[in-house]
Amino acid sequence: MNKSYKSFTALAVLAATAGVAQAQSAVTVYGNIDLGVFKKTGSTLSEGRRDNNRLGFKGVEDLGDGLKALFQLEIRYDPDVGTIEGASRPLFQGQSRVGLQGSFGTVRIGRGLTALQDSNVAFEPFRGTPSTAGFITDLMVAGYTSQPLDPAGSSANRFSNAVFYNSPEIAGLQLNVTVATREANGNPALIGRGTQAAPQYAANAALNSNPYSVSATYRAGIFAAMLAAERNAAETKLWSVAGSVQARPDLKLVASYQSQDQEHTVAVNPVTKAWVVGANLDIGPGTLLAGYGRKTPDGAVPTKQIGLGYEYGLSKRTFLYVDASNRKAVTSVNFYGVGIHHNF
Amino acid sequence: MNKSYKSFTALAVLAATAGVAQAQSAVTVYGNIDLGVFKKTGSTLSEGRRDNNRLGFKGVEDLGDGLKALFQLEIRYDPDVGTIEGASRPLFQGQSRVGLQGSFGTVRIGRGLTALQDSNVAFEPFRGTPSTAGFITDLMVAGYTSQPLDPAGSSANRFSNAVFYNSPEIAGLQLNVTVATREANGNPALIGRGTQAAPQYAANAALNSNPYSVSATYRAGIFAAMLAAERNAAETKLWSVAGSVQARPDLKLVASYQSQDQEHTVAVNPVTKAWVVGANLDIGPGTLLAGYGRKTPDGAVPTKQIGLGYEYGLSKRTFLYVDASNRKAVTSVNFYGVGIHHNF
Amino acid sequence: MNKSYKSFTALAVLAATAGVAQAQSAVTVYGNIDLGVFKKTGSTLSEGRRDNNRLGFKGVEDLGDGLKALFQLEIRYDPDVGTIEGASRPLFQGQSRVGLQGSFGTVRIGRGLTALQDSNVAFEPFRGTPSTAGFITDLMVAGYTSQPLDPAGSSANRFSNAVFYNSPEIAGLQLNVTVATREANGNPALIGRGTQAAPQYAANAALNSNPYSVSATYRAGIFAAMLAAERNAAETKLWSVAGSVQARPDLKLVASYQSQDQEHTVAVNPVTKAWVVGANLDIGPGTLLAGYGRKTPDGAVPTKQIGLGYEYGLSKRTFLYVDASNRKAVTSVNFYGVGIHHNF
Repeated sequence: MNKSYKSFTALAVLAATAGVAQAQSAVTVYGNIDLGVFKKTGSTLSEGRRDNNRLGFKGVEDLGDGLKALFQLEIRYDPDVGTIEGASRPLFQGQSRVGLQGSFGTVRIGRGLTALQDSNVAFEPFRGTPSTAGFITDLMVAGYTSQPLDPAGSSANRFSNAVFYNSPEIAGLQLNVTVATREANGNPALIGRGTQAAPQYAANAALNSNPYSVSATYRAGIFAAMLAAERNAAETKLWSVAGSVQARPDLKLVASYQSQDQEHTVAVNPVTKAWVVGANLDIGPGTLLAGYGRKTPDGAVPTKQIGLGYEYGLSKRTFLYVDASNRKAVTSVNFYGVGIHHNF
Repeated sequence: MNKSYKSFTALAVLAATAGVAQAQSAVTVYGNIDLGVFKKTGSTLSEGRRDNNRLGFKGVEDLGDGLKALFQLEIRYDPDVGTIEGASRPLFQGQSRVGLQGSFGTVRIGRGLTALQDSNVAFEPFRGTPSTAGFITDLMVAGYTSQPLDPAGSSANRFSNAVFYNSPEIAGLQLNVTVATREANGNPALIGRGTQAAPQYAANAALNSNPYSVSATYRAGIFAAMLAAERNAAETKLWSVAGSVQARPDLKLVASYQSQDQEHTVAVNPVTKAWVVGANLDIGPGTLLAGYGRKTPDGAVPTKQIGLGYEYGLSKRTFLYVDASNRKAVTSVNFYGVGIHHNF
Repeated sequence: MNKSYKSFTALAVLAATAGVAQAQSAVTVYGNIDLGVFKKTGSTLSEGRRDNNRLGFKGVEDLGDGLKALFQLEIRYDPDVGTIEGASRPLFQGQSRVGLQGSFGTVRIGRGLTALQDSNVAFEPFRGTPSTAGFITDLMVAGYTSQPLDPAGSSANRFSNAVFYNSPEIAGLQLNVTVATREANGNPALIGRGTQAAPQYAANAALNSNPYSVSATYRAGIFAAMLAAERNAAETKLWSVAGSVQARPDLKLVASYQSQDQEHTVAVNPVTKAWVVGANLDIGPGTLLAGYGRKTPDGAVPTKQIGLGYEYGLSKRTFLYVDASNRKAVTSVNFYGVGIHHNF
């Protein structure tokens, strides 16, 4: 608590100079920039990102007795055009959270990845990067979005107005829970099972129930596993089971299965199922990423995707990459990419 | 003055690496994050902020002979959803100013809190935080806004396109003056005493007179006082008188009175008056905040508010809080809140 | 390359605290703030910027063997009102680039100044600042814009979706090349030689050819010279030749000539030509900037401008300035300005 009540103006101005060293040490500026050149069947050569781009500010304060206060603010941006991600997303699209960490685990409040979406990246062949060659965006979560009643253009993986709990890891087991409020968040109307005139969710609708997301992760030696479930603001339900094995020091294998049920808002073919398998194999100064996955809407054409990537390390913070993939649904789309990834 | 003329491209690139230590030491990254869970009569449980949230960049350069150059850029944001404050306000809603400080005082240019709005927070029971339980936003400034001809959604406390002067504090007395230009700033039309077809101020109107704000503050031992007046772009006039006494080391009492005259743009009941009294009492590891205030529009229902808060300190930078208040105008609204505040 | 695969959630939280010193040292926060008060014939007194305002984040990583990775993200903002520049431009309007630098030169990818626009500022009397008294914006590039098919309100000097190459400087000679992709970038329709109903470039049009920009710069003793050419997304062609001589240690003379050909989109008077001469003379603790220039559209009124400025140094980072200019086209416009510039 700040007992130094706000003082007169000139003092406030001087205060702007005090404690520089202290304040500076408290905030870490971090992030990454990822840009490449890409070619997709039927599209012109384009420049863009393979991974999400972040510019963040974070810090940890030691409160004593093993208790810590922590905060994190994360801008997401598109460096090919210089805008914030999607040009219309929140400034801190990545996350904006504050919380406490202690022997009880971590409790945070604000906006961030849901428990499910935060846990499943460890089981995806491209480590959760949204590369077109990767599986996280479409295959692994079966086209599911955590934010159906957020403003148009919102990304697919987060809860706003939420509380986030991560248990300590006990005997390899960890529990993660995210629960959001039912308050409206500026969504456009979602027709769903309603009509244009009477949409199921009106614009800026308050929710009927609290969105939640839970995941349990387990580690034992070379094995890891995840079981997770989530229900979003439009009451779509997603569950996922995944596992990985570090078969050799240079080889990690991953597999996942997920099922999405949109029955609350979709009348036809409301259930989507998907599975993805893959491997990460160190070769020379880099790592080969390989994966295959399928997504099956009931009674419709399934999506099949094969993806390959190679990350050539220039340092621990910087690598070059090449990606290639084929994705078949009604049509077949080839994809090739080459670029650079730099962490800072 | 930078005599090193811009050089050729490759040199400019290299320059990006030079002077890292110097530049870094010049900029302090600072701010705070405040999030809580709130319940108001008639509203769903919601997540939000009790205090404004800031992410700022500031620095001071010693120019010798007691002269300093100073700058400050302050983002304001809503961490419950990750957006900049109000989603539509300026990126540097908090302030964007540069200036000089010396024996003559401080002169700054840009956008920031007006003299009145910067001075009165020391006399408000919740120290100027915009908590629903606090008094600054509605009661203390009688619903007044410093920015009636700024873009829609602008906050209420600042001048853009202004010059800010703070005198040195001499024998406890300090004078603060803010004056803005008459240039247009992108306001929507303000009907005022005009009509829909011929509004008193058209969209993006140039002003008839310069907005200004002055405050004088005085300190003597345990006593402090303020006298302030402001006239905004739509020529609404506000004046305020306030005082405080540090009755005991653990007890501060505050009181203020203010009067707002909107005669220039409002035909009926143009005058609003308000008073607020309150106390800050240290209890245990925290501080109790208590206040009561009234606002009286001529010939209409007055607003009465009682507000209570407790800030439980976890460190000098971090505290937990609980707030409760009742506000009565035409209806009675109860408010409860609990949250965390972290300075970084 | 980051071989540390994303791990479980709580670990990720802890990771937020690790490597603080390392990450912090990698990112330099830098920028400048420039604000003044200006008066133009026929306009009210206004507050604004003489130079562009930047808040940037940059870093360089040594990869060994003379190879470096570098990134730079640069916000541009208007401190008189606190918004990002123009209120609608990209957050990182200044630049957002990542690349490698070595004995081969520098290769970067992203958004930034074109080769021509990056090189010509060294030959402009006001060093490329967009002061109304300066020549860069209108005279020196003949009203040309590098971004005719970018979103409305984009500035005039950059390519998005581009690759940037700067050769090493060999015997005083350096070559700079920028090439952009043909992908659409969100432009409004550009009528050009089409009609309202069938504009030459539809909204969000893909390009017919790749925009490019090249410049060669040469330095020998007190002499420097530039030859540059650019073709933008709407196939307007610009070329420029410029030179400078450091006649005395305190006196630099500059001159430039440029020609713009808009024949691809403009039917009448498609060619614009301009020349600018000027001097920078150190006087006392500051520098006098002086320039004269003309712009000649075929068969129409030419534009003539004389500009004067004085920068009074308070330190290497901070100066005060006064500017004055007269610009004559169909009407004659006088301009006066006074302000402060602070680098941080």
